[in-house]
Amino acid sequence: MHSISDWRIHVTMKTLADAFHDELRDMLSAEKQLVKTLPKMVKKATCEKLTTALEEHLSETEKQVERVEKAFGETGRSPRAKTCEAMKGLITEAEDMLKREAEPSVRDALIIACAQKMEHYEIATYGTLCTWAESLGYDNALQLLKQNINEEETADEKLSELAKTINKNAMTTG
Amino acid sequence: MHSISDWRIHVTMKTLADAFHDELRDMLSAEKQLVKTLPKMVKKATCEKLTTALEEHLSETEKQVERVEKAFGETGRSPRAKTCEAMKGLITEAEDMLKREAEPSVRDALIIACAQKMEHYEIATYGTLCTWAESLGYDNALQLLKQNINEEETADEKLSELAKTINKNAMTTG
Repeated sequence: MHSISDWRIHVTMKTLADAFHDELRDMLSAEKQLVKTLPKMVKKATCEKLTTALEEHLSETEKQVERVEKAFGETGRSPRAKTCEAMKGLITEAEDMLKREAEPSVRDALIIACAQKMEHYEIATYGTLCTWAESLGYDNALQLLKQNINEEETADEKLSELAKTINKNAMTTG
Repeated sequence: MHSISDWRIHVTMKTLADAFHDELRDMLSAEKQLVKTLPKMVKKATCEKLTTALEEHLSETEKQVERVEKAFGETGRSPRAKTCEAMKGLITEAEDMLKREAEPSVRDALIIACAQKMEHYEIATYGTLCTWAESLGYDNALQLLKQNINEEETADEKLSELAKTINKNAMTTG
């Protein structure tokens, strides 16, 4: 069915450490995919505050990639990404939205919606990774991943705040 | 590139009402996809509390589909789903995980991780839909969507609580 799954099913998940390593690989892929996609969203945004917020989040995301790579340290395994299918789906939707014709303020509202879905994917995954790191006693990884989840939550709140103005603007169009 | 996008780009997003309708169609697809996937996750779960939590969430999800359909009322447009690519990606990852060999308690931990990613996708999307419904004065839709987001948040918290025991069990295996 899915070409990606052919080799994955041969890797047995014996311990929580296996699950942690696998999930971290997924996250590394998700963050890397986001680094490539955020500039496309910046380019299509019109509200200056939104452009700034997305640009700031892009530079945060670049640092998050580095932290995820460092978080592999305690696993004793290589920091190799594994295609994150969920982020791939989120990006398909985002790119699809960017291609459509839209009034500028409605487009901004849609960009925020897509960005918040991405944030929430990361919040959920970092949440899992943090609790697993805690169980496994991976203290260094826990600190790094906590930094990332905090940044994601702040970025999400900032977008919710920004949405209030943008939705008002979008209501006056059309 | 994406076969799904061919017709979508022709639909102009002129107003926030257009965006709301489109997002609601995405959500209807996401919930319907979940109704088909949750039973597969139930089947592979071993911890009885997890099985019960997933079964309860399945019956909640069935009711959520009905509420999303009702939320179309104020839009004056038909309640027709539009394939949610993000949920498709999340499900690809979940099904992939279910196919792999895993120790039972590690599998349970992985099932929770997948379920929480799904919850968070829905929380993000319902969050957007609720703020848009508020701006648009769609009071009936707002009430229905708020009910759904509250259920998602409760389900997510329940899984976080359950994960504590399950992670402990997973630590003793392997």
